[in-house]
Amino acid sequence: MALAVASRVLLHAGSRLGRREAVNGARRFANKRVLVEAEDAAGIAVMKFKNPPVNSLSLEFLTEFVISLEKLENDKTFRGVILTSGASPAGGCLMALTCDYRIMADNPKYTIGLNESLLGIVAPFWLKDNFVNTIGHRAAERALQLGMLFPPAEALKLGVVDEVVPEDQIYSKARSVMVQWLAIPDHSRQLTKSMMRKATADNLIKQREADIQNFISFISRDSIQKSLQVYLEKLKQKRG
Amino acid sequence: MALAVASRVLLHAGSRLGRREAVNGARRFANKRVLVEAEDAAGIAVMKFKNPPVNSLSLEFLTEFVISLEKLENDKTFRGVILTSGASPAGGCLMALTCDYRIMADNPKYTIGLNESLLGIVAPFWLKDNFVNTIGHRAAERALQLGMLFPPAEALKLGVVDEVVPEDQIYSKARSVMVQWLAIPDHSRQLTKSMMRKATADNLIKQREADIQNFISFISRDSIQKSLQVYLEKLKQKRG
Amino acid sequence: MALAVASRVLLHAGSRLGRREAVNGARRFANKRVLVEAEDAAGIAVMKFKNPPVNSLSLEFLTEFVISLEKLENDKTFRGVILTSGASPAGGCLMALTCDYRIMADNPKYTIGLNESLLGIVAPFWLKDNFVNTIGHRAAERALQLGMLFPPAEALKLGVVDEVVPEDQIYSKARSVMVQWLAIPDHSRQLTKSMMRKATADNLIKQREADIQNFISFISRDSIQKSLQVYLEKLKQKRG
Repeated sequence: MALAVASRVLLHAGSRLGRREAVNGARRFANKRVLVEAEDAAGIAVMKFKNPPVNSLSLEFLTEFVISLEKLENDKTFRGVILTSGASPAGGCLMALTCDYRIMADNPKYTIGLNESLLGIVAPFWLKDNFVNTIGHRAAERALQLGMLFPPAEALKLGVVDEVVPEDQIYSKARSVMVQWLAIPDHSRQLTKSMMRKATADNLIKQREADIQNFISFISRDSIQKSLQVYLEKLKQKRG
Repeated sequence: MALAVASRVLLHAGSRLGRREAVNGARRFANKRVLVEAEDAAGIAVMKFKNPPVNSLSLEFLTEFVISLEKLENDKTFRGVILTSGASPAGGCLMALTCDYRIMADNPKYTIGLNESLLGIVAPFWLKDNFVNTIGHRAAERALQLGMLFPPAEALKLGVVDEVVPEDQIYSKARSVMVQWLAIPDHSRQLTKSMMRKATADNLIKQREADIQNFISFISRDSIQKSLQVYLEKLKQKRG
Repeated sequence: MALAVASRVLLHAGSRLGRREAVNGARRFANKRVLVEAEDAAGIAVMKFKNPPVNSLSLEFLTEFVISLEKLENDKTFRGVILTSGASPAGGCLMALTCDYRIMADNPKYTIGLNESLLGIVAPFWLKDNFVNTIGHRAAERALQLGMLFPPAEALKLGVVDEVVPEDQIYSKARSVMVQWLAIPDHSRQLTKSMMRKATADNLIKQREADIQNFISFISRDSIQKSLQVYLEKLKQKRG
């Protein structure tokens, strides 16, 4: 299990300063693929993905994910959200990269990374940019070309994750890290995050439409479809 | 004590090549807040800050600092300057980042870092750029969001400083490092430094006015003033 | 001996997917300064430089190098090329940086790095960009200002090379690494590499003419010629 801690991104920085309301108890809301457990007292929500078998980022899943996140953003009770998944290749790794802190369970069966090249496709530039920001240019280049998925020890060494802890301590560690981040005034922390990530985000927004068109035309090619098929058949043989 | 070694930045590169004059003895000049000890023979000057209690970067201090630096730059006897301070948060850390090499005393009571977010403000982009250049994007993002001040061992591990030495060896180490840097022809070393830092410096110059206006409007807000006040009162309670 | 493994850069990505022809045996072709040994069966070519005494990158050498590389690129039998040299300062280091993987013999008599500043000249921006991409901004700044040449252990620690192996295992290691890279579909690996290096390459192409003119005017100055002469005489004294 790879667990990522995301301190909530507020679009209106400063708006929540000193507004932590002391509400006790916990709430829950869920749709089909995303479960949200809300600890109102601490101002922390936990979001669990349940889209078996591998939490594929389907349109349905992403829609529910965005709705859940927006619900939390619009509820002033919450100041941070912890994301959890059973699987962190490709899109799962991106979600982790967008978070403020990444914690991974110390179990070699879990891996994290961007394995697009193995499938015969290419990680989009906005994924690459986030990866380079996190682990540096050279490490990202090698990992992306080889489609490397890292077990916990290697992920930690490279900086893909910030911490590796025993699996049964993931939640308590995530909570204690979150408390550390929430000790900083929200507005200055959020303005700082925006400053750090603005260039990368602007670049994505600017090239968004062109990127979608490029991807559609790339993925529709016969040769790419054949390459994907070869990969999926290899996977089946491995498992069967 | 955090000690930073700055190999002198010459605007007219190459102009001093082979002009080290063999003058023995030492000179001193000082104004209220900056003391300069000049070892003419070695071509090295040492600049000590004395603006108690924490070497605040007031307008008066910065004016004296700039005048002292210009005096040294205009005196062809000198090829390098060693800056020293008893305190390296925020602006002190920036001064260290602009130097060519950073040496820190091995005493956990000294810390270095950018703690703006703790005060409820945000490090300006030109400080962020220098920090990212020095320790990389991810480490800078975390440190800036959390306002982290690093004791010597951590500062070394992260690359905020290049070396940690026992406190009584700071000056001798700084001198021996300076000799190593001065062994390179001035003009090629300075052109190389300009090449490495040009994009960052240009970006600062280009956005300078806008940055000043932004900061003034930000710092004048009631909410930010209140946030600063809260921080200062916390500091007082801690000390009192 | 510093050995660099370059997985072949294909301009027409994907064009060779699944076209590995099973040809046994090996071929050779050579001109005066570059020897190419071709292992057709594995799809790997080995390129050896033989421009004594230090494989200087003369116009003649570079012409032969480019011709040899183009021959390999136009021969669909080959998917990767291993470059080898007895010397890796300056231009030799650049060749290594352009490769996908760098392996160095574990012998302290070999060094790698960019020592331009020692000669009184400045590494061009496109060399600097590749260096920064490989080892990060701060490490590159220090190494470039000081003109540092790194023995194997330091080169590995800094990330200038990816691996250090005993000298007699260089070739077998290079081959096994190459097999690892060639296991990825060519087209996705090559598109990924292009994405990672496009900004750097575009910048070189855009400023190419201006850079040539700058360098010619810089290198023709009397002061720079004198500085080069001083360095060469120091070298002679060291050896004599």
